This record gives sequence, structure tokens and C-alpha cells, in this order.
Amino acid sequence: MLFENVLIVDPVDGEFTGSVECENGLITNVKKRSCTWKYILMPGFADTHTHGLKGIDAMSALPADFERWADFALEDGVTYLFPTTVSSDFKMLEKVIKNFSKANCPSLAGLHLEGPFINKEKAGAQNPEYICGFNHNLPDLVKDYVKIITAAPEISGFRELVKFAKKYNIKISIGHSNATFSEMKLAFEMGIDRITHFPNALRGIHHRELGGTGAGLFFDFKVEMICDGIHTSPDFVKFVYKIKGAENIILVTDSIVATGLNNGKYNLGGLEVTVKDGMAKLKTGTLAGSVLRFLDGVRNFYKYTKCSLKELSKVSSYNALVNLGIKNAGRIKEGFLARFVLLNENLEIVDTVL
Amino acid sequence: MLFENVLIVDPVDGEFTGSVECENGLITNVKKRSCTWKYILMPGFADTHTHGLKGIDAMSALPADFERWADFALEDGVTYLFPTTVSSDFKMLEKVIKNFSKANCPSLAGLHLEGPFINKEKAGAQNPEYICGFNHNLPDLVKDYVKIITAAPEISGFRELVKFAKKYNIKISIGHSNATFSEMKLAFEMGIDRITHFPNALRGIHHRELGGTGAGLFFDFKVEMICDGIHTSPDFVKFVYKIKGAENIILVTDSIVATGLNNGKYNLGGLEVTVKDGMAKLKTGTLAGSVLRFLDGVRNFYKYTKCSLKELSKVSSYNALVNLGIKNAGRIKEGFLARFVLLNENLEIVDTVL
Repeated sequence: MLFENVLIVDPVDGEFTGSVECENGLITNVKKRSCTWKYILMPGFADTHTHGLKGIDAMSALPADFERWADFALEDGVTYLFPTTVSSDFKMLEKVIKNFSKANCPSLAGLHLEGPFINKEKAGAQNPEYICGFNHNLPDLVKDYVKIITAAPEISGFRELVKFAKKYNIKISIGHSNATFSEMKLAFEMGIDRITHFPNALRGIHHRELGGTGAGLFFDFKVEMICDGIHTSPDFVKFVYKIKGAENIILVTDSIVATGLNNGKYNLGGLEVTVKDGMAKLKTGTLAGSVLRFLDGVRNFYKYTKCSLKELSKVSSYNALVNLGIKNAGRIKEGFLARFVLLNENLEIVDTVL
Repeated sequence: MLFENVLIVDPVDGEFTGSVECENGLITNVKKRSCTWKYILMPGFADTHTHGLKGIDAMSALPADFERWADFALEDGVTYLFPTTVSSDFKMLEKVIKNFSKANCPSLAGLHLEGPFINKEKAGAQNPEYICGFNHNLPDLVKDYVKIITAAPEISGFRELVKFAKKYNIKISIGHSNATFSEMKLAFEMGIDRITHFPNALRGIHHRELGGTGAGLFFDFKVEMICDGIHTSPDFVKFVYKIKGAENIILVTDSIVATGLNNGKYNLGGLEVTVKDGMAKLKTGTLAGSVLRFLDGVRNFYKYTKCSLKELSKVSSYNALVNLGIKNAGRIKEGFLARFVLLNENLEIVDTVL
């Protein structure tokens, strides 16, 4: 496959015009050449936090549903998809992992377990009934298919969880946590370097207790952000971008089953969610995931921050993949996986290549 | 006067050993020379926000009291002193300015009016009875003796106040304000570049409304900080230092009449204040200024942030003076005012030179 006269956007080498050649799913040749470009070629996006899309819900998806989901996500440029569970009993989680394990699509990169090892005080839209401490109670299949576990550092068994996760190369991402600044510092020193949907469901900043939000800004955590203009204000996105830089931001959707469907009532881990005006909420008014499409998040970030395309390729793909230790992915460079989004100058998708 | 074999700390040229010569109150010669230093020579400190010291209160001080205050402050290395009023009726303010105008000491650099043009919702320890909008209601003497006015951008007449302040070269410092991020942005765009005792008595950070605290971090405001470990946590000081840099921090004491005296009950602008355990509080528990000595604030900042001495000279003197447009001050350089603190390696004051 050959892409000629494109604006190539690489998260490390930056933006340049030229052509890209691929063979057998790998990039074989990147040629820098002065030319008039029509399309932008970026690394395929990675959504590391998404509960569902167009009627498909990670908690109830059959193998074929996961595959359809992966196909739908391509429309948004997502070539690395991490279906995400919510807090649930372990039998149910095992069923989800089993179904996922039987799905067959290269963009299904792994599962993300959001909970149940989180803090009830910051449950958000997680069902408190299933929230618990870690006690080696995860099904065995986790080791092979789970790449991320969102957990709160203050829960019982956290140290054990970290050991477990390190052993099986699973990334711990701090989320739904009421941890203080000191607790966050301790976690960072233990090697935890990722935060889930920052700063939602974290302890806020106070000038006598910086909390998880302050720690997220202070330490070099990589932070997920839901750029729907609802979970945080556009100003807050700019603020995080200014303080932490594009290097430390990972765009996610946190999208739920209702995404891409009509307004109405939906189910999220046994809780009723109402979707209206682009917002998904519990009866209590608490935000319950989003109905954000990945591409819209990317465009919003670009609009809010006025970042470069190079930076945009970091927050939309490279940072997430490097942070998860996924090799040869997220760049436009010889030897890397040939997964791309082809966009026009208005950041509309022309094609996604997997 | 000659200082030989000292470690010279200049906020611009940095740290170097050598000698400094002065004549008629001006620095005439700064010689860089390799030597073993015994003492550190830094620019004299500037305290731009202090309500009182050792039984003297700006609101009731007679001319001789202001002079004694200036003398006391030298013990802490303060060679630029800005006695600070609290919200009060205009007759009372006029009396204070008159008394100040008759005091005679070179370190009495000007007055700081904290209020009354502030927001009642963020009154803190300011007497709400006197809080009001600006309506050209200041006594005439203000033009000659006041260098700083703390005001809230959301009060009525703020634009007029800014015009008035510009005309008479008075610095507006945002404080006791409930302004939103947008209101702060607007003020910053109007040329307001200073914030009073950040982030105390400002709207806190929320991820859907960054507030005055968020704006203080986001925009290049110079921010006063009370480094007593009480008004903010040491972590918060480090946080501000990391985000804004030493360039944008101005150490102040916000000290009240009880500073340097015993625990007990005191008066602050007509409100009863109890001093205990290093804290000054209203009956409601609200912090009411500090009992911080300037030198302790300097040492705390140094300890909390592990900054360089060069940076320490910025936060303790240079930034405040440059921000106020005071010429030839705050540096150790030929032609600048010969005001110094001589410190030993433990940052204990050996001498203050005015």
C-alpha cells in the first residue's frame, strides 16, 4: 500500500510531507519529500477507555459484538480499542473476558477493567454493590487479556494488586479515588504513572490538601482526559495542557452503549442512565460515562488547546501505546505497525487503515 | 561601606563571590572574585502586605509607630515596607494615610490598601460592614502614599478603579474575590497582573470552573504567598513554584499586630482575633492574617521548594519591587539602592543595611 503526497504526522519526528509505503501490515518506507499535500496521515487512534458504542456494551457483548464494535470504532479512526468493564461481580467479569477472548479483530488490543478495586466515596457511576478491595480475587483469564486496571491506591490490598499487575504486565491507572496528595505521591513512587479520566472522580484541589487532582498536575502522571466539553470545561483542558504538556495527556472517550444512538434510557452496570443533550447521567445527576466519539474528542482537544498536529498524534495514540508498553505502534516510521487515519484539512476522516 | 568576601546573590546575575562597595546609599562597585565567603549578601527584603508587628497596627499607628515598625522590620531583613490597611470607612483610611505621611524612614515605601473594594462573599477577616464598590470615594492623599490596592474585579466600579489606579501609578492586586476564570481573564487582559495572598480568599479550582485560583495558575499573574505553612500547605507552595516559577511569586507576611507578641486576643479592623499555635483566627475559625515574620517566610519557601538563592532573592524582594515599578531597587548592581541583608549559611540575619 502506498500513500503519496500526504502530510505525515509523527509524534516524534513531527510534521512533514512525503509518502509512506507499507507491506504485510508494517511500514516499510517513509519518504520525506517537498510536495502539495491533500490529506493528513496520522497514526491510528487508541481509545483505552470505552464502555460501549452503538448499542454494544462491554458487559454484555458476545464475541461478534466486540468485532462489530471494533469495526464501528474504525469510523472514528480508532485502531487500538480497549473495551472497558465497570465494577461487577467476578463471575460476570470472567464472562466478559471469555467473550472478548473469542473475538477476532486486530484492533481489539486488550481489556480495561475500571474497578471494582476503587473507592465507594468516589464511585461516580460505578455500582457500589460490587466495589471491593483486592484479594487475588480476579479470574485467571485477566492475565492474558487485561491491559489496564483502574484502581484506587487507598483500597485494601493495593500493594498486592500492584505486584500482581507488574507480574502480568498490566497497567494500573488510578481512578475513582479519594486519595490525598501524600497517598498519590506514594503511589507515584511505587511506579504508578497513569490516572483514569482526570480529574473526574478524584479528590479536588485545596490549598491545604492538593488531593488527587493536585497530584495529577504535580507529578508526571499520564492522564486520561474525556474531551467532550462536559466532563471538564475547555478551559480546564487548556490548563492541563499548559501545565503538563501534550506528553502527559491520553485522550479517551469513556463512551457508553448509547454512543451513536438516540437519547433515552440505558443500562450501565445495572444502573439506569439517561442520555440527553450529549450527556449521560444517573438519576442523581452524576455523569455516567460519555456519548463522545473519539474523533470529536480529538477535534475538541485541537480546538481548545490550539496544539500542533504532532502533539495531537501524541494525545490521540502515541502516549497511550507507549505508556502500555505496546511495541512498534503509534508512529509513522519504518518497522512500525501500518495503522493510520487519513484525514482532510478539517480533520474529517477520509479513511482508516488497519 | 565595603562588603568583602561575600556570596553575592543577585536576582538577575545569580550567585557569585566577591565584594560590594557603596556610597551615599547607592551601590558603586560590585567586584566578582574567587574567594571563601563567610556571609551571604542579598537584596533587602520587601514586605508588600503586612498589617502590623509587635503591638503596632496600621489602622491605629501614629507617625512614630510607623517608624518603630520600620525599625522592627529591619530585624527580619525588610528594607521595603508596605503597611497594609483593612476595609474601613474612608475617614479612618484618611487618618491612617495622614499618619503614615508624617512618618520618616526610608524603608516605608508606601501603603497597601486591602479593601474596601472587595467581595463580601470572600471577606475572610475583613469587616463586611465597610466593604463597598468604587465610586471615586477614596481620600485625595491616596494618590501620594498608596502603592497597592487589593480589589475584586467583580465589584461595581472596578473599571473606574483601574483607570484611577493607572493614573496615579497604583498597582491593583486582585484579592478577596469570587471572580470566575472568565472574570479573571478579563482583568488580566485589562493589565491587572497581581494577586493578593494567593490562593486565600479566592474562588477555588473546579474542573468545570477554574475560578480565581485556576486563573492565578494559568495566567502570568504575580502572586503574593504567605509561606507560614498554615495559609497553604508546603505542598501547595511547591506546586505553585513548579507551575509558575520563582519569577511569579512574591513573599508577604500578612502579619497582624500580634506578630512577635504572646498568644491572646487582638483587634483586627474591629473584629476580635485570637492568636494561638502560630495561627490568628476569627471566632468563626477563619484565618485572620498571620503572625509570620518575613525571614521565616523566606526560610520556609527555601525549605519547601529547594529553590536557588537567586530565586530566593526574586521572591523575597526583586519581583515585588519590579512589579511595583520601583526603580533601582532589589538588585546588587552598580547604581542600585544599597539595601541589603547579610545572612549566614543558615539564613540567619547577621545585619540589615538600609
